[in-house]
Amino acid sequence: MKMKKTRIILASASPRRRELLAQIGMEFEVMVSNVEERVTATLPGEVVQELSGQKAEAVLAMPQAKESGTDASILVIGADTIVACDNKILGKPADEEDAKRMLRLLSGRTHEVYTGVTMLFSPQSPADGSVRRHTFFECTKVCFAPMTEAEIAEYVATKDPMDKAGAYGIQGFCARYIKGIEGDYNNVVGLPVGRLYQELKGWLENEESSDI
Amino acid sequence: MKMKKTRIILASASPRRRELLAQIGMEFEVMVSNVEERVTATLPGEVVQELSGQKAEAVLAMPQAKESGTDASILVIGADTIVACDNKILGKPADEEDAKRMLRLLSGRTHEVYTGVTMLFSPQSPADGSVRRHTFFECTKVCFAPMTEAEIAEYVATKDPMDKAGAYGIQGFCARYIKGIEGDYNNVVGLPVGRLYQELKGWLENEESSDI
Repeated sequence: MKMKKTRIILASASPRRRELLAQIGMEFEVMVSNVEERVTATLPGEVVQELSGQKAEAVLAMPQAKESGTDASILVIGADTIVACDNKILGKPADEEDAKRMLRLLSGRTHEVYTGVTMLFSPQSPADGSVRRHTFFECTKVCFAPMTEAEIAEYVATKDPMDKAGAYGIQGFCARYIKGIEGDYNNVVGLPVGRLYQELKGWLENEESSDI
Repeated sequence: MKMKKTRIILASASPRRRELLAQIGMEFEVMVSNVEERVTATLPGEVVQELSGQKAEAVLAMPQAKESGTDASILVIGADTIVACDNKILGKPADEEDAKRMLRLLSGRTHEVYTGVTMLFSPQSPADGSVRRHTFFECTKVCFAPMTEAEIAEYVATKDPMDKAGAYGIQGFCARYIKGIEGDYNNVVGLPVGRLYQELKGWLENEESSDI
């Protein structure tokens, strides 16, 4: 992938997203804004696209994103993940009781995890000064084994659920209760790096050949 | 899960299997035998069950497995993973050329990953002195994006494929090329810990209540 002239900025504080992007061999910086999330969409796939766009835009607007001392093009990647079950959207739990409530809801059934990704490409020497935007989302189905009340309490006591949408991390202790998935695993962790790489490959090469 | 009186031994040299079992909160030891693999089965699910059984039996037969100085029951877990594509079974690549051949085969299509697990339970005070045996396998479908020759060469140059069945590790750099899966992700990494935990929960509690 030809990306030498492009600074890539991940607009996320999540250490899991950072690890995933590094794992596939990408070089990038991390910048986080304190954007206030405003949701106008209702469908889960649209909600995560909207929120990922707000995160990416807020970082691109930060002075640090542009005053790098280099004259490279900039690509900002924003991402947002939610869990949806019975048409209810589950974010991060408010407290341990809320985490238990979410896990009871997910126990013994299949739910969906949505991650939205927005890429903003600000070319080095734009012919028209405009920022290119590309947004997509991935949905993965996750099937949980039944959990007893004791198992839910044991898992919540590990604190692992507290900073995660839907009150679980598929990559930790909770793997005990995951029967299987349908779709991209890394999408559940927080960043669909397979789809991201493939989209970048086509899109960025296109942008670079036309703008630089 | 009530398993205090049982020593659990993982009969595998794979660091990935070790990590997965530790991740779900299991306490266990690792013992590895130099068992010679003999395959009589032909179907992938039967092959991995057979090989996982040979690994578990070889470890249970080792003096170290029984001379622990404790009087606990022993549970040995053996596992074996293969990749199947077009009814061909892919093991670990012999060399870099072999790895490239396998990746060309997997590129742009869906294949299956089979992991067989055998659990041997040797009770502390058996009424009839016998070892209980339980075997199962899990199958996960994995869909690869198309890989160019340059991408295959780049991935093989990372050396990541060389010690892995089918010449790829789903949890590394190769995540770039994974479009999605159907089934248990950890089964592809090498140990279906979700199924393993659920099977153990029912089976071991049963064994312990009847034998100890």
